Amino acid sequence: MPYAPINFTKKLALITDHWSPKIIAQMNETHFKLVKFEGDFVWHSHEHTDEVFIVLEGAMEIEFRDDRVSLHTGEMLVVPMGIEHKPFAAEECHVLVIEQADTVNTGDAGGCKTAANDVWI
Amino acid sequence: MPYAPINFTKKLALITDHWSPKIIAQMNETHFKLVKFEGDFVWHSHEHTDEVFIVLEGAMEIEFRDDRVSLHTGEMLVVPMGIEHKPFAAEECHVLVIEQADTVNTGDAGGCKTAANDVWI
Repeated sequence: MPYAPINFTKKLALITDHWSPKIIAQMNETHFKLVKFEGDFVWHSHEHTDEVFIVLEGAMEIEFRDDRVSLHTGEMLVVPMGIEHKPFAAEECHVLVIEQADTVNTGDAGGCKTAANDVWI
Repeated sequence: MPYAPINFTKKLALITDHWSPKIIAQMNETHFKLVKFEGDFVWHSHEHTDEVFIVLEGAMEIEFRDDRVSLHTGEMLVVPMGIEHKPFAAEECHVLVIEQADTVNTGDAGGCKTAANDVWI
């Protein structure tokens, strides 16, 4: 079959590490990535892309320098290009991240939480 | 507050018509649209964009000239640019459609099911 549905639950079951985005689809020049968030991430920004967070299960926060947004299951947020932000999840949260292909998770910040940006599951 | 979560359930409650995409967000040059599908749509293709379907609630099918895919809640499919397809939903199905900004729902086909491509909710 040339076409097959991508099932979020089945794909998430393949992910065992936190803060490590896995690509599940590409649309034009945009990647769709599943990520399991837990705990604190790093302050960073993405110079070349807006970034969409869609919460599939759980709750998370995105801190901005002048604001903080709580996201729950069935909610999304667009973080504009170039804006510093820091994701956080008190408990494990399953997220669909959508952004320009080849984007690195830690953006301009680097550091030990930088993950490969080309892993498909 | 400069940033606010976009809640799918609350936005869907504002939609009363079928096959009429409403924009809820933009990421780079990509629009995120909520649509309520019910019944049969028309054969069409999109010359300039791939098209993502994410089922938020319900079930739908996408027919291709040589295939047919069933999608359920928590599943997505990428329809490649230029490929003829026809969505169908036996019962009302709530879908997040993601595609290049300014895309028209009926693509190259036109006809009475063509909806405005610039309505935000």
